[in-house]
Amino acid sequence: MTSPTATLLVSCPDQRGLVAKLANFIYAHHGNIIHADHHTDFTAGLFLSRLEWQIDGFDLPREEIAPAFAEIAEPLQATWQLHFSATVPRIAIWVSRQDHCLLDLIWRQHAKEFAAQIPLMISNHAALGDVAKQFGIDFYHLPVTKENKLEQEAKQLELLRQYKIDLVVLAKYMQILSGNFISNFPQIINIHHSFLPAFAGANPYERAYERGVKIIGATAHYVTDELDAGPIIEQDVVRVSHRDTTGDLIRKGKDLERVVLARAVRLHLRNRVLVYGNRTVVFE
Amino acid sequence: MTSPTATLLVSCPDQRGLVAKLANFIYAHHGNIIHADHHTDFTAGLFLSRLEWQIDGFDLPREEIAPAFAEIAEPLQATWQLHFSATVPRIAIWVSRQDHCLLDLIWRQHAKEFAAQIPLMISNHAALGDVAKQFGIDFYHLPVTKENKLEQEAKQLELLRQYKIDLVVLAKYMQILSGNFISNFPQIINIHHSFLPAFAGANPYERAYERGVKIIGATAHYVTDELDAGPIIEQDVVRVSHRDTTGDLIRKGKDLERVVLARAVRLHLRNRVLVYGNRTVVFE
Amino acid sequence: MTSPTATLLVSCPDQRGLVAKLANFIYAHHGNIIHADHHTDFTAGLFLSRLEWQIDGFDLPREEIAPAFAEIAEPLQATWQLHFSATVPRIAIWVSRQDHCLLDLIWRQHAKEFAAQIPLMISNHAALGDVAKQFGIDFYHLPVTKENKLEQEAKQLELLRQYKIDLVVLAKYMQILSGNFISNFPQIINIHHSFLPAFAGANPYERAYERGVKIIGATAHYVTDELDAGPIIEQDVVRVSHRDTTGDLIRKGKDLERVVLARAVRLHLRNRVLVYGNRTVVFE
Amino acid sequence: MTSPTATLLVSCPDQRGLVAKLANFIYAHHGNIIHADHHTDFTAGLFLSRLEWQIDGFDLPREEIAPAFAEIAEPLQATWQLHFSATVPRIAIWVSRQDHCLLDLIWRQHAKEFAAQIPLMISNHAALGDVAKQFGIDFYHLPVTKENKLEQEAKQLELLRQYKIDLVVLAKYMQILSGNFISNFPQIINIHHSFLPAFAGANPYERAYERGVKIIGATAHYVTDELDAGPIIEQDVVRVSHRDTTGDLIRKGKDLERVVLARAVRLHLRNRVLVYGNRTVVFE
Repeated sequence: MTSPTATLLVSCPDQRGLVAKLANFIYAHHGNIIHADHHTDFTAGLFLSRLEWQIDGFDLPREEIAPAFAEIAEPLQATWQLHFSATVPRIAIWVSRQDHCLLDLIWRQHAKEFAAQIPLMISNHAALGDVAKQFGIDFYHLPVTKENKLEQEAKQLELLRQYKIDLVVLAKYMQILSGNFISNFPQIINIHHSFLPAFAGANPYERAYERGVKIIGATAHYVTDELDAGPIIEQDVVRVSHRDTTGDLIRKGKDLERVVLARAVRLHLRNRVLVYGNRTVVFE
Repeated sequence: MTSPTATLLVSCPDQRGLVAKLANFIYAHHGNIIHADHHTDFTAGLFLSRLEWQIDGFDLPREEIAPAFAEIAEPLQATWQLHFSATVPRIAIWVSRQDHCLLDLIWRQHAKEFAAQIPLMISNHAALGDVAKQFGIDFYHLPVTKENKLEQEAKQLELLRQYKIDLVVLAKYMQILSGNFISNFPQIINIHHSFLPAFAGANPYERAYERGVKIIGATAHYVTDELDAGPIIEQDVVRVSHRDTTGDLIRKGKDLERVVLARAVRLHLRNRVLVYGNRTVVFE
Repeated sequence: MTSPTATLLVSCPDQRGLVAKLANFIYAHHGNIIHADHHTDFTAGLFLSRLEWQIDGFDLPREEIAPAFAEIAEPLQATWQLHFSATVPRIAIWVSRQDHCLLDLIWRQHAKEFAAQIPLMISNHAALGDVAKQFGIDFYHLPVTKENKLEQEAKQLELLRQYKIDLVVLAKYMQILSGNFISNFPQIINIHHSFLPAFAGANPYERAYERGVKIIGATAHYVTDELDAGPIIEQDVVRVSHRDTTGDLIRKGKDLERVVLARAVRLHLRNRVLVYGNRTVVFE
Repeated sequence: MTSPTATLLVSCPDQRGLVAKLANFIYAHHGNIIHADHHTDFTAGLFLSRLEWQIDGFDLPREEIAPAFAEIAEPLQATWQLHFSATVPRIAIWVSRQDHCLLDLIWRQHAKEFAAQIPLMISNHAALGDVAKQFGIDFYHLPVTKENKLEQEAKQLELLRQYKIDLVVLAKYMQILSGNFISNFPQIINIHHSFLPAFAGANPYERAYERGVKIIGATAHYVTDELDAGPIIEQDVVRVSHRDTTGDLIRKGKDLERVVLARAVRLHLRNRVLVYGNRTVVFE
């Protein structure tokens, strides 16, 4: 399964023959499909599909695949993305003071759980600069205040451009990005330390303790204008009891946070996530 | 373990010697403790304890236990409850149209998963009258409107008195009880079909679908003045995916609802739940 | 989604163009696909697929679909099944003394969680005859001993034929079926009260208690010659602690058993399960 | 809660007055109990208890606590352990080639999830020597063959003595320890990469794949003479599907292994685990 592949993520208004049309495109050019999954959202009247096939033996050169597929997509009013497994995406990890999600992502990259380069780290604190150094990642300490936020976001956007970043991962970055930033760079995954939509915003563990819940959670989602309200990619939970203090919730939550974030990042990097409206289709 | 027992649920300001004082009370009267569990909430400065012992061989007659313990409890400023396993509690089950929680509770009573009598059902719909009849439970159809709510609640309270009800279980009863009702009869367990505090209020499954969550839940809690905000007894969750429609969430949720409600009712009936503030200690 | 559908379950050696060929068959006859899912087992070199489409507008009459598809399937060396949603399958439920899985299945049928008729119950005990009566299901009490087993199995097979049964559900039927029986009627789903392959065979809860496990499970599987070794459809687990006696494991296990069995039966009845070798593909 | 504490773990034949006797011992010396939990195994006729109290204000000097408690324990035929939170236990981590459990334990130690020193690593491979170096842990590469096993175990035991090790953690150490080794050093926790007793022994993920299970697990247990049969401390599971290859099971399993092992080590180090027979009481 390690031979190079191309992947199409397609969404379009539902109609007859869509599976056939997509599959015929691959087959006509002698592609060998290794993953095909489709979903129809009947409420939205949308067809959503993921197709992955081996490049070896495909009779279109890489650069001709997109133009050729565009001709099929246009009459279907489809929006689509084309990805090549040979193109390794570039991630920027943003952190504040906590290192558990950061170290976990780096370990998984080293363990080849996903294919990505991590050339850049950005933080509003200096605390994790040493971790960056240890793993040979460029580190920028950009403290954010009310006053300098716009200015710092301009620098951050410039860094993302300079480092050719494809995806920003907010690995416990405790600052809110502006709507302007997000519209300039919309590919951002955040881990929120609660079972959204419960406890959106600040101090979720404190509030979970206050409420006396018996289960806590973590949520990985794409970042949108509205705080903690973007499309959810993955969630998970763990049981707590009356014996657990807020400190215990924080400790238990860390295990959730790193696993949930890692799953979401891995799904995204393997082009398994299709966003539509405020929802995701996760082709597992 | 089937010999009759007495159970004390105690909470008081924390201080040295509490475990010793409680255990000595039982031991001094030759009681054999079969369950002892304690919890200290250091934030609240509260000690909470559950003690269960066999009545056989205990040298105080039943009616003298409470007065004797009161003398110990008073200097500790303790609030406490005393229960006897030989006294079978009486439940009223309130329903609307859905039968899954109702049938589940009745089945568990028959299977002896908990000891309780169910002499009374109350509903704002006639739909489940036949189930009541089948199992020999008295059924009162009390439709509720804005206009007659006070009047119906008066009748409901009268029925609870008349049937000597110890616990009301809202098994998908889709009406909100007034603050007045609750202060007159505070022993009420409700099942809410969401992972509280997410999706409190109406239509939680519809809203969970809208939000695109990847996990749904159910919550059993004591009813208080504030809607869906009472002390939580038990919660559980189940994974959903983009393939699940609102109808699928409702179907999957039913399995959660009946299990979560049944666990909460069983815990309550076995005197395993101690409420303080808006929290519960569950002595499992 | 309630308009009638046809479903194809197909497995064949993997090769290029399979998704296209299957989808083209539906599209060529103007079928509207509402579910298409495919899986390739690269180790086994097998392609497995499920296609469901609406019959309305399909330009082949029902009885011509199978012959038409056979022509496509043959050169692919495919094995396949064709099901129509309009044909409601007929289930026989086999029980011993425990009623929880039985009542659960009946309740789900009434709640329309799956479409099936349940005309027949078979038991080696008389205990649940009244349940059968209550729900208008024919009940046969066929006690099994070493001596009469062959004879009783002959009667059982005759009943399955007579009642035109499509699926046997062993809902805690505590007898082992002979290889001969199974080869004569291979469509059998069993619920085993352990997390297989742990604790296959008798008394799994007692053995789980002995072993001191911290989690127990239940497994729904197709029945094969080898005891508790058939293809697994669904499993689930629940946490236990040192406080749980064998009786508690049995009680907690019942909740697992009925949910796991119900999920498996529902998946099977909706033609979501494809068996190959000793494995299942579950198209969810 | 950070003031120093003493902890008693006690087990003895069940009789009246045990909770009182234990609590009175603490109270008589002015100890403030911060955790008291008891369990009675009625089948075994055993009472098991954990008591933790603050040293500050306790009127017995540390060295006199054990002799004083021995006088209480003897007539009860109790076996017991006494631990002081001020005495930080010393761990040796044993590994082979995989680093995920190792790095996880080291990270948790740094994050202060448990209090322990890790002065020693032993491995049958050289692969993880660099990790040891990075964190300032002494590393011994002791390759094991059939021929040199006895000799190497003698060296290993000598190292445990030399480093004053309290607990050996087998963090994916892929060698079997001899009965002789275990009887010389019985405090060993192992992580097994299956849901025991399923798939004890070699290659559990391969065998789980072969069997077609829908859920995989991991088990942390004390090591005994019989392979993978020692008292279980903690287990957890994760769902898998037909899409998961053996490689996916291994990847998903790693997340389980590190969490389950870490929970078990943390419980042990906080003196929350009491072994009796082949079972554990986990005082959480």
